[in-house]
Amino acid sequence: MTLSIAHLGPPGTYTEQAAIFYIDWLSKSTGDEAILCPYPSNAQTLRSVAQGQAQLAVVPVENSIEGSVTATLDTMWQLDGLQIQLALELPIAHALISCAATLDDIKTVYSHPQALAQCQRWLEQFLPTVQIIPSNSTTEALVQLEQDPTAAAISSQRAAQLYHLPMLANDINDYPDNRTRFWVVSQGQLSAAKEALPSTNATHTSLAFSLPANEPGALVKQLQVFAHLGINLSRIESRPTKRSLGEYLFFIDAEAYAFEPQMQSALAELTAHTEILKIFGSYHVLQIC
Amino acid sequence: MTLSIAHLGPPGTYTEQAAIFYIDWLSKSTGDEAILCPYPSNAQTLRSVAQGQAQLAVVPVENSIEGSVTATLDTMWQLDGLQIQLALELPIAHALISCAATLDDIKTVYSHPQALAQCQRWLEQFLPTVQIIPSNSTTEALVQLEQDPTAAAISSQRAAQLYHLPMLANDINDYPDNRTRFWVVSQGQLSAAKEALPSTNATHTSLAFSLPANEPGALVKQLQVFAHLGINLSRIESRPTKRSLGEYLFFIDAEAYAFEPQMQSALAELTAHTEILKIFGSYHVLQIC
Repeated sequence: MTLSIAHLGPPGTYTEQAAIFYIDWLSKSTGDEAILCPYPSNAQTLRSVAQGQAQLAVVPVENSIEGSVTATLDTMWQLDGLQIQLALELPIAHALISCAATLDDIKTVYSHPQALAQCQRWLEQFLPTVQIIPSNSTTEALVQLEQDPTAAAISSQRAAQLYHLPMLANDINDYPDNRTRFWVVSQGQLSAAKEALPSTNATHTSLAFSLPANEPGALVKQLQVFAHLGINLSRIESRPTKRSLGEYLFFIDAEAYAFEPQMQSALAELTAHTEILKIFGSYHVLQIC
Repeated sequence: MTLSIAHLGPPGTYTEQAAIFYIDWLSKSTGDEAILCPYPSNAQTLRSVAQGQAQLAVVPVENSIEGSVTATLDTMWQLDGLQIQLALELPIAHALISCAATLDDIKTVYSHPQALAQCQRWLEQFLPTVQIIPSNSTTEALVQLEQDPTAAAISSQRAAQLYHLPMLANDINDYPDNRTRFWVVSQGQLSAAKEALPSTNATHTSLAFSLPANEPGALVKQLQVFAHLGINLSRIESRPTKRSLGEYLFFIDAEAYAFEPQMQSALAELTAHTEILKIFGSYHVLQIC
């Protein structure tokens, strides 16, 4: 069986790298093959799966330095029926890629805002006077570097190799423990991915909910549901409902499989006391070193 | 007394607009005057105050559609002694600014990622094939529009007037109730701002804390402190500690003045059970229609 996997492009992004790790893991687990389908944004990547253009999407969810990828969370909430099959955690090491001879020749640095933010101090120290220009992905600006030897981009070593471009500096991220978590997402349960990993292996359940408007202290009640049942929450993230300033959705990662009895009780209680509850599925977290 | 107020530039940004509202309010309250000092990022705006280059900074904190301005939260945590003097909530209405004759002539659209995200559906509907290019502020790209009639920028009506540029469309934000909250921040207590508004008028206190590593359910305990004392929390936001994926700081807005007895009890309990606790001050929220 050949699966199509949507991801943020152009080729060479960290998300593509995560998709390649997933394909490798899938091929070892089930023998299935996959083709890569690059999309211009994470929102469009997820939409391609919701609309049936691709069978799976790989999207970044959270980085250890820059935090949530809000477009991923917002789109997961907006679309119906998306299910997380697996989480992958990858180390992120940024390189400065340029056709310039030395750092002194560089006048502009391009990259995705998350990557720029992760190398902020390095840029201030080594390239204090350059112009910083955000781009839609870490690889989008790479094609322009050959034409402009005063330009540089922050991207991965792998991207430099892929586009045959020189690296002027390596491991330029400000914090050494820079990791990103990605979700592999399908529309409903996907039989191939399901076979690859029995759901009883699932250790995490992700969900999101909105609360009836203006109910003070409501979030505490929801968190207490989990605390009383002894379920640890590895992440709590709020996002605006987009209705009015001060109204939020809450995204939660619980360290439990959705069909465990304790988790079933928690979900029943949540259903009764939330406005809308969406369960994005249970999954295993694959750590990549 | 003439105060210097740092804000995100170039002139014409929504943050500058918030700063102008603040100056107007200050001049009515105390007679003080102020000069505007534009900076290239919100982090540098806050640093200018921490380093004594400016006396006050106006920074965006949260938008009703796109959520937290993470650079503001992260920088407030990193710098010591910054105190919020006032919060301002402003309506945000975006315009499409361009020297093109019609929408059909536009090939690229520039703006700050927050503004681009707030007009995503409008862009998909009316300009589905254009290239979207992020910029460091809503006004940064405006100067280039005259040279390139195929380019457009998303910015405010006020910015279009300031740069004498035509608007092709107005009120293009996807959600009508688009508002941003700004903080006016000083290094320590600023006498002028203090005189302008007695702190007894303060209705909100903002704080942030980190928790001892790997203590499950710890956030629930902190939230219960406020719940038991009857203090409503209008906002709970998590940000990565940048130490390791899965470790967070929590930013909280409590609806109480820091020196109220109930809030004093809450802060004492928090001090005992958090790793680092930073109190960013108590302030009043000014709603601007």
